[in-house]
Amino acid sequence: MSRYLDKIDSPEDLRKLPQEALPELCAEIRSYMLDCCSRNPGHVASSLGAVELIVGLHYVYDTPSDKLVFDVGHQTYAHKILTGRREAFRTNRCKGGISGFPKMAESPYDAFGVGHSSTSISAALGMAEAARIQGSASRAVAVIGDGALSGGLAFEGLNNAGAGNADILVIINDNNHSIDDNIGAMHEHLLRITTNPRYNRLKGKVWDSLGETRARSTVQRWLRGMKSYAVKSTGGDLFEAMGFRYFGPIDGNDMGQVVSTLRSLRELKGPRILHCCTVKGKGFAPAEADPTVWHAPGIFDPRTGERKRSPYPCERYQDVFGAVLREMAEKDRRIVAITPAMGSGSGLNDFATEFPDRFFDVGIAEEHAVTFAAGLAAAGMRPVCSIYSSFSQRAYDEIIHDVAMQHLPVLFCFDRAGIVGEDGATHHGAFDLTAYRPIPGMVIGVPRDETALKQMMYTYGSVDGPMIIRYPRGLGEGSPWKDAPCRELPLGRAECLEDGSRTALLCLGPVCTQAVEAAREYAGKHGYGPAVYDMRWLKPLDTRLLDMLAEEFDRVITLEDGAVHGGLFSAVAEHFASRGASARLEAAGIPDEFISQGTRTQLLADCGLDRDSILLRLENDNNNDING
Amino acid sequence: MSRYLDKIDSPEDLRKLPQEALPELCAEIRSYMLDCCSRNPGHVASSLGAVELIVGLHYVYDTPSDKLVFDVGHQTYAHKILTGRREAFRTNRCKGGISGFPKMAESPYDAFGVGHSSTSISAALGMAEAARIQGSASRAVAVIGDGALSGGLAFEGLNNAGAGNADILVIINDNNHSIDDNIGAMHEHLLRITTNPRYNRLKGKVWDSLGETRARSTVQRWLRGMKSYAVKSTGGDLFEAMGFRYFGPIDGNDMGQVVSTLRSLRELKGPRILHCCTVKGKGFAPAEADPTVWHAPGIFDPRTGERKRSPYPCERYQDVFGAVLREMAEKDRRIVAITPAMGSGSGLNDFATEFPDRFFDVGIAEEHAVTFAAGLAAAGMRPVCSIYSSFSQRAYDEIIHDVAMQHLPVLFCFDRAGIVGEDGATHHGAFDLTAYRPIPGMVIGVPRDETALKQMMYTYGSVDGPMIIRYPRGLGEGSPWKDAPCRELPLGRAECLEDGSRTALLCLGPVCTQAVEAAREYAGKHGYGPAVYDMRWLKPLDTRLLDMLAEEFDRVITLEDGAVHGGLFSAVAEHFASRGASARLEAAGIPDEFISQGTRTQLLADCGLDRDSILLRLENDNNNDING
Repeated sequence: MSRYLDKIDSPEDLRKLPQEALPELCAEIRSYMLDCCSRNPGHVASSLGAVELIVGLHYVYDTPSDKLVFDVGHQTYAHKILTGRREAFRTNRCKGGISGFPKMAESPYDAFGVGHSSTSISAALGMAEAARIQGSASRAVAVIGDGALSGGLAFEGLNNAGAGNADILVIINDNNHSIDDNIGAMHEHLLRITTNPRYNRLKGKVWDSLGETRARSTVQRWLRGMKSYAVKSTGGDLFEAMGFRYFGPIDGNDMGQVVSTLRSLRELKGPRILHCCTVKGKGFAPAEADPTVWHAPGIFDPRTGERKRSPYPCERYQDVFGAVLREMAEKDRRIVAITPAMGSGSGLNDFATEFPDRFFDVGIAEEHAVTFAAGLAAAGMRPVCSIYSSFSQRAYDEIIHDVAMQHLPVLFCFDRAGIVGEDGATHHGAFDLTAYRPIPGMVIGVPRDETALKQMMYTYGSVDGPMIIRYPRGLGEGSPWKDAPCRELPLGRAECLEDGSRTALLCLGPVCTQAVEAAREYAGKHGYGPAVYDMRWLKPLDTRLLDMLAEEFDRVITLEDGAVHGGLFSAVAEHFASRGASARLEAAGIPDEFISQGTRTQLLADCGLDRDSILLRLENDNNNDING
Repeated sequence: MSRYLDKIDSPEDLRKLPQEALPELCAEIRSYMLDCCSRNPGHVASSLGAVELIVGLHYVYDTPSDKLVFDVGHQTYAHKILTGRREAFRTNRCKGGISGFPKMAESPYDAFGVGHSSTSISAALGMAEAARIQGSASRAVAVIGDGALSGGLAFEGLNNAGAGNADILVIINDNNHSIDDNIGAMHEHLLRITTNPRYNRLKGKVWDSLGETRARSTVQRWLRGMKSYAVKSTGGDLFEAMGFRYFGPIDGNDMGQVVSTLRSLRELKGPRILHCCTVKGKGFAPAEADPTVWHAPGIFDPRTGERKRSPYPCERYQDVFGAVLREMAEKDRRIVAITPAMGSGSGLNDFATEFPDRFFDVGIAEEHAVTFAAGLAAAGMRPVCSIYSSFSQRAYDEIIHDVAMQHLPVLFCFDRAGIVGEDGATHHGAFDLTAYRPIPGMVIGVPRDETALKQMMYTYGSVDGPMIIRYPRGLGEGSPWKDAPCRELPLGRAECLEDGSRTALLCLGPVCTQAVEAAREYAGKHGYGPAVYDMRWLKPLDTRLLDMLAEEFDRVITLEDGAVHGGLFSAVAEHFASRGASARLEAAGIPDEFISQGTRTQLLADCGLDRDSILLRLENDNNNDING
């Protein structure tokens, strides 16, 4: 069908093409990418914008011997398609298919696995230093978006690379967008460079005068002139002050410019930055027009751009969170909301509109989000810090050291807790329960549905220290939360959802729904069934309930959408073992391995957290292995 | 005795003094500080350098209404002495005394508790935004050392403060030192500014022409001129590019300059940076001459500067680590060592001398240290990353996402694990066992003595993924490690140290020594005693041993120098509970609270981890509460 793409099974094949063929290849890649993603949802806009850059990198560099480290990684579909995964790309983000992010185990061309932000400079610097020590000719390139530059880790990487003399090329893929709008002084700095009218005039003139076939030396001269101009006029010297040689900005969607520039920069030594402007959603008009919506648009018509969305049968947890927080903020002027670049994903857009003075999008900067919240709390505010569960790992120290140790009133709302589904291992919020349970004074609540989320948030009104509420990605259970009273839930008290005997199911979170269904089905068949409890709080734990269970039940099964070692299972086991309780304890949850992508439903079933698995476990009374 | 200091019980008293009295007051503070610290060890050099700055801040600002946030906090002894804790300062870092760091619970003048690095800008920004929302006149000042500026959190704070319009003053206390030498492009940038000879000439001229009584406007003019000069000539515009107004550098040990400058800057709005050069160890010649040694010199003679050190009776764990790593690196060229600014504290100085090409001090940048190590490992090296346990919390996400998820061979050596002693709550390595146990594929070893540390390090030779070895601060047990064979220890296998019956003591780490002593004493008295096991590995766990214990013993007691919920106790409880084991389980370890300062011996006893506590627990067979 396609003229070039069908014949490219590796970058070796790509490098055999004449340079003139590359623009058409890019068009073919875009077309294929849109075709696949229109049926099998993915990260469309970022990957559309980076096609020329990725084609250019594989064309100019000797991959996989040269190492390409992509930051975050959802801009890499062209990379996947060009590195032997063209057909496999149809299974992108599916269970058993390929990962939506670079993954070392998947391909030697994936030099470093990613998913979280701002890691690429440090990793590429490690590869550059390894090459130096090994005497290898392998080159290291980091490709980082302008949004990811606001993360502290990226700065630490720049700060170390710039002070040394490592041969590292950092490409800033500047599309003027993280998922939401970009934030911070670094972003404004990039913007000043690229919006300077004198730069743009000059760029046009110089570039127009260059054919794509012009010799490298011409481009180098241009780059040199461009660079010193940009530096002098706009402050490109932030990077120069950091010890880098700064080149650019160039048009990262101009295939000729990309190839010529990369060829020049490949031959230089030391730490270099190439500032590369790309258009998020490039080549697909609807995505260019609204890159935030098209970051992950779901299923769509690749010809018209019409997105095929059925209305939600109920609200998503993030929407409930956002709505309840607005209610709370109306009543309590001390409440402020903080998000590290996830305002829309966290359901905070309406809050931002309604309370612009009390809303802080700090950019991709989880550590700052937390310590900033601690500062607000120390000065009398009641900050609510919304972070995706797996990204909260970035702020683990700050949550301990700046918030919990000072017992400051910060409410952490961890969205995307537990299994997230298609984003896979890097994004599952598997470790929050285990990581935060040992932190003294922390209250940890896990709502079983939208109503419980609302009521747990209101419960925070009478908590004087830090509190975590964690809830999953996606739709709620359909509970009538809007009409539910704003009452507080008693701390450290579980709720009995279903009476029963012999076996007790202890649940944390929405798995309650599955457990009740399984219990009822079991009871319908056998005439008796298990008791089902919504534990509600991992901390403080309802030890009174546990003591009762230890006396009156033979078998206790914990069910939690989180790592099984260290969370609810562990808390109950500690209590039982120290009381010498004889009830047998079993656990269902995320086992001791990293879980790849799949739908949330598929993966929860793998973890034994769906109705059928629970029922099977109830029927099979001899099961006493963890996750057995 | 002193003319001024004895009468100062709060900054209110300080502000009543005429400005001319301040230099003498500073001398009195230094004298008192040296007197106290010579007998009761503390962080001397940093605090000596910051006296004028702290006096100036309390003199000019309306504390505690205005908020002073000190980064790290071991430069704040003058602050403690001036804010109602003059006499209490004699108990600095002692059990029951005052903390060596600012601590909110201790004084309203401690606006924010610290200990870890790079938090001050974010916290102060939170306070500034709170004041804006509240309509309060409270001002926010962050005082941050040049070393702490390399931490990513500090950059995230700058990036957010510079892009907004918050009224925040960031004072860079530039003493050209973190504990070891400073690292990174940011440091070199500061150095370029302060070593520019034209700046220094100009500064001398302008300052000489100003008397201390000159009007504020003169100083402001000078500052303006100075600033634009520094910016133009030396690159002070790194901060300007970040959205800050940059002032300085000034001589931070010149009382007049400090007061005049602060008075000017207090009246300005928006984000401002004052670059303030101080001399670490100022006013005490031995400390000025060797600020690294005098960072925490121990006991000394305040007249002569003679340090009173008795020779160590045996090596410290850090020295054993450093020596063994050198041996390993001689045999395996893939081994490289990485430290985030703790080269001397981690015992890596000799390694750095012997293998300069394979040693990386990345500055205060734990996140980068880990992701950089992952990059090195991905390119075929075998990095050894040495981090203090509590600082490893900063890199929690990177350890999970960049190392463990890719199963890369990085050896983490966590020094200062468990109770650290006098540095207190912020520095105890309480959470490493609990935080890393749930991470899939992680091997976690806890050596009981120097020999075990050596052998665990050699065991890493046959581990193909990530591994953590954690050991405490300070002296080893005196085991003959140098002559011990370089043999590997079997993974997941405990070692029986003492046969016994009825009760089994399961130990992790050096508490083995205490447990054996207690067991022997108990056996001597009763004719039978408990068995003692060195568990060695928290992960993989010796489940074969646990199954045997569950069958043959009535009572099992876990002993670990770490948070009791989630670590060894939890792992054993999980195993026992899921097997329906009837042995009663008890735990000793760090309880579910933040532990303040004291000697390591005192605090370990409080946690039930000393010989006497273990003996008492053995005698009292009815004890079945956690930490009861």
